[in-house]
Amino acid sequence: MRDFSQDHQWLSINTATLRKQWTLDRIIEECAKRGIRAISPWRDQVAAVGLEQIARQLRGTGIALSGYCRGGFFPAVDAAGRQQALLDNRRAIDEAKTLNAPCLVLVVGALPGALTGKPDYTDISRARTEVRDGIAATLEYARQVNMPLAIEPLHPMQAAERACVNTLEQALDLCDELDPPDVGKDTPSVQGRVCHLGVALDIYHVWWDPKLQQQIARASSNPARNRLLAYHVCDWLTPTRDLLNDRGMMGDGVVELKKIRGWIEQAGYLGFSEVEIFSETNWWLKPGEEVLDTCIARHRSAV
Amino acid sequence: MRDFSQDHQWLSINTATLRKQWTLDRIIEECAKRGIRAISPWRDQVAAVGLEQIARQLRGTGIALSGYCRGGFFPAVDAAGRQQALLDNRRAIDEAKTLNAPCLVLVVGALPGALTGKPDYTDISRARTEVRDGIAATLEYARQVNMPLAIEPLHPMQAAERACVNTLEQALDLCDELDPPDVGKDTPSVQGRVCHLGVALDIYHVWWDPKLQQQIARASSNPARNRLLAYHVCDWLTPTRDLLNDRGMMGDGVVELKKIRGWIEQAGYLGFSEVEIFSETNWWLKPGEEVLDTCIARHRSAV
Repeated sequence: MRDFSQDHQWLSINTATLRKQWTLDRIIEECAKRGIRAISPWRDQVAAVGLEQIARQLRGTGIALSGYCRGGFFPAVDAAGRQQALLDNRRAIDEAKTLNAPCLVLVVGALPGALTGKPDYTDISRARTEVRDGIAATLEYARQVNMPLAIEPLHPMQAAERACVNTLEQALDLCDELDPPDVGKDTPSVQGRVCHLGVALDIYHVWWDPKLQQQIARASSNPARNRLLAYHVCDWLTPTRDLLNDRGMMGDGVVELKKIRGWIEQAGYLGFSEVEIFSETNWWLKPGEEVLDTCIARHRSAV
Repeated sequence: MRDFSQDHQWLSINTATLRKQWTLDRIIEECAKRGIRAISPWRDQVAAVGLEQIARQLRGTGIALSGYCRGGFFPAVDAAGRQQALLDNRRAIDEAKTLNAPCLVLVVGALPGALTGKPDYTDISRARTEVRDGIAATLEYARQVNMPLAIEPLHPMQAAERACVNTLEQALDLCDELDPPDVGKDTPSVQGRVCHLGVALDIYHVWWDPKLQQQIARASSNPARNRLLAYHVCDWLTPTRDLLNDRGMMGDGVVELKKIRGWIEQAGYLGFSEVEIFSETNWWLKPGEEVLDTCIARHRSAV
């Protein structure tokens, strides 16, 4: 297992962690100042500053992306809405290319309208079918332009509103259905080729899963196409006071971060650990400098 | 599928639904007045009135139990704590016998101390092992006195504090391990004999699960010992504002109650639909009469 205690070369900052304090250009500047090598920005944060300006700033600072947030939200009550979602995902892929992201993270969506409290329908099986079809259509374009898609299973408490893919097993089932595992398995020419459909594993969403270790191993069962495309960390607080915005800093909660990192490294994941903390009543209220410095310290001690 | 629209003969009231309004004796009286045939009381509510008095009142009104809430909370930081938990579960079984309950519901427990915000340890695998051992020990006594145990998988958002059994699949894996499915499968003498280890399926905790239909079918794969011992209903609200006490009345949320009841009836469950609503800011604030009348109406229209 990699030693994270001596430096923070494998730390990435998901920029939602600082969205209440700073604009994205300032976040990049502060990350560069601290020797942080990667970020994962959100589309609205990029748009607020300007895509080209952010791309230039990234090139200038040498900061890489560990992912781009986010595509998804495929289900809709009618065909026009689903078509709009596909177009929007295509734009997200183009932005991800411009920023040289290693993958586009997909928060796949759930019951359309539920986020505003008025679900258009309540058939979660239908939403799951629309998600599958949406990913399949988006995957065609993603393959053409070589931008891997990373399905992020969200915690079951988000199943109505944000994502009806809620376990790693379910996400991998989708990967295997849309991007079959055996294709090219024994062909030397595909060794090392990019996996175009995989998962973004956010520990906050999956830490509770009794099948987590088993499914992490499954994700890398075809070494030529490891499905583990991104890894997000934070912590689960007791008590948790809000279903969305009460995430903890690593080390402040109950998630066994080192144990789980052991599993993913065993499965061949050697990329960044991306810190993503939504925290309405704590970290979003603190000075950005303090949050970033704490991320660095906890990345060394608790991740 | 049974027709619930004409009467409420299959309605049961989990008495936590009215815990802020009335003591248990009053709840039983009000249920009797409305022709409700079953309840599922909590131990603290029984204790507040007196076990013998409640047993007498139930006999007098002819109201049956659909379950008794609850045993469980097996994990503890030391052997003395685990022993205390076993003794307490034995007392719960004795009370369940006195009240003629069809099963004791188990909320199995999770990280000890987490409920008070100070977990004694964070190793959820250890908690799961302690749960398995606790159920195994309790099952011996349960078999002796013929009181079935019903493991209740709790929503993953409760995995740290209340139950580290979080899916129906995981609960059924435990049942199969501790009470193997093939024992006596083909022996005529066990036909119809009681299943001593099964599950209490609370729809609030499992509605999101992509494997729900498949696992419900699995629960009845040995017809002589159907694992489905209890069925609880309420609804998932969008938004949900609290992880514990923001459950909705049936019909006010996004759960496909009729579809799921179809699955469990297909799997041979023909018992009560038990309404269990914890609702800090809505139903617990309303007059008990209004809550009960609404439960009856919604049981007919939405369950």
